Amino acid sequence: MGILVVGSVAFDSVETPFGKVKEVLGGSGTFFSTSASFFSEVNLVAVVGEDFPQDHLQFLRSRNVDLGGLQTSPGRTFRWEGRYGYDLNEAETLDTQLNVFEAFDPRLPMEYVDADFVFLANIDPELQLKVLKQVRRPRLVACDTMNFWIEGKRAQLLETLHHVDILVINEGETRQLAQEPNLVRAARVILEMGPRILVVKRGEYGVLMISEHSLFSAPAYPLESVYDPTGAGDTFAGGFMGYLSGTRNLDEGSFRQAIIFGSIMASFVVEDFSLDRMRTLEFEEIEERFRRFKLLTEFQGLG
Amino acid sequence: MGILVVGSVAFDSVETPFGKVKEVLGGSGTFFSTSASFFSEVNLVAVVGEDFPQDHLQFLRSRNVDLGGLQTSPGRTFRWEGRYGYDLNEAETLDTQLNVFEAFDPRLPMEYVDADFVFLANIDPELQLKVLKQVRRPRLVACDTMNFWIEGKRAQLLETLHHVDILVINEGETRQLAQEPNLVRAARVILEMGPRILVVKRGEYGVLMISEHSLFSAPAYPLESVYDPTGAGDTFAGGFMGYLSGTRNLDEGSFRQAIIFGSIMASFVVEDFSLDRMRTLEFEEIEERFRRFKLLTEFQGLG
Repeated sequence: MGILVVGSVAFDSVETPFGKVKEVLGGSGTFFSTSASFFSEVNLVAVVGEDFPQDHLQFLRSRNVDLGGLQTSPGRTFRWEGRYGYDLNEAETLDTQLNVFEAFDPRLPMEYVDADFVFLANIDPELQLKVLKQVRRPRLVACDTMNFWIEGKRAQLLETLHHVDILVINEGETRQLAQEPNLVRAARVILEMGPRILVVKRGEYGVLMISEHSLFSAPAYPLESVYDPTGAGDTFAGGFMGYLSGTRNLDEGSFRQAIIFGSIMASFVVEDFSLDRMRTLEFEEIEERFRRFKLLTEFQGLG
Repeated sequence: MGILVVGSVAFDSVETPFGKVKEVLGGSGTFFSTSASFFSEVNLVAVVGEDFPQDHLQFLRSRNVDLGGLQTSPGRTFRWEGRYGYDLNEAETLDTQLNVFEAFDPRLPMEYVDADFVFLANIDPELQLKVLKQVRRPRLVACDTMNFWIEGKRAQLLETLHHVDILVINEGETRQLAQEPNLVRAARVILEMGPRILVVKRGEYGVLMISEHSLFSAPAYPLESVYDPTGAGDTFAGGFMGYLSGTRNLDEGSFRQAIIFGSIMASFVVEDFSLDRMRTLEFEEIEERFRRFKLLTEFQGLG
């Protein structure tokens, strides 16, 4: 029954050196779902306020995202405002208004409890745990997190990690969570915490996937035009989990291809503000970029 | 007749979070030559002072580096002192004493003027040009440079670039030289300046090789123990040029393999201070790491 994702649906206001948008569609759940929808069925659990417009719901439905788990609560939708400088690597958060997200209590519709692929986007680890308690026997559980939870809710986060197969996390947060500056050693520390696979997101430098017996390094797709990096990480995760859910193969080779598909989806979403690039994206473009990715990285082995 | 390299031979004093060494063997010419010597004949043009010890010369000779172009001048050898923090990405220079390097006037022994592979390490672009005027018909010329020359001797650097096939340069300096924040576009700008291939060094994130019709991205080899990044860039360049000179193939496939060999040599040199790791390195270890590099990056194409 495809993927279950729990995350945020939000209005983003973003400024980059290339432009400025106000209260456009955003949120980790939105980016993830849209990206995953190119490969798999997706079921979104999230909350919006009464101000959330029909056309955004319509867009998600047009991508075949199931909204049976999307609650509408009295009040305003989650809002985030941020700014990027020329290096585009890190957002400066200007304003966060949790609004209806503050009291978000994720409840899974009956049809979702048999989900076999679960993605817990970057939300309070207590909510992530709450979701995990509602699913019956998921085949693969992945989660994201951030410095805010690593610092403020470490115990709860460690409890969540105990029940997770894959942790998808930024490079700096990998070091922070493990309290170890060397990335490979930090990864080994985290693999002791529960996840059997760690996917380290390095922004424009790509992704490193680490498990006990394997290391896989993928570059980011080199782009001449990056307009807005917002949502790149969740879009990556969406492509990654979406591909795995679609192919239903969980061998090393499929995980590696999933990393590439995730990277490709991220490379598209940053080409425009919000999810705008996803609105016109065709599957043939994804495949074409996969082939370019192969050319970008391949070299001959020794005789 | 192998590679001709012009660069510095120096005493380095280095502090990293893992230790401290004083006046050990260093310098761009030294790191480059030693690395290249695993693949090719190497001819070093450089200058040392009267204080330079025989055992350092003996080490270079033991690597079959030809020292016919190494001048000894009255005075002290070039000294550099630097410090690295935990991220190991950028050195803080504490002291630079040019000493005999200040009046360095590179003169090629007669036997060197027919060199067909030339590497101009990061020195004054006027000296780089002087060297180029002395070689007859090199098959491949590569050079390195840095912010100091980009800012202070831009005109002379542009003149050098005009006569160079390959520019090997740091990521930040790529942007600075091109005056363009986007890396891919910055590369295109630099390809208009003369070089037909740009090799962008991204430290722990690997290397991007860009030419008019091709892009190749290679990660750095993920290491659990990095003790001292000094000389990593020159060691990379040495493996890269050394492999090309050794194989004498200049097709795209050989360039890609050369990038991998360069990355491997850099991954070894940072495992210990100065060139100490190079003193015990065996070619079988290089080949073994090449195979691991292949496993690190490979994934299946689309059906």
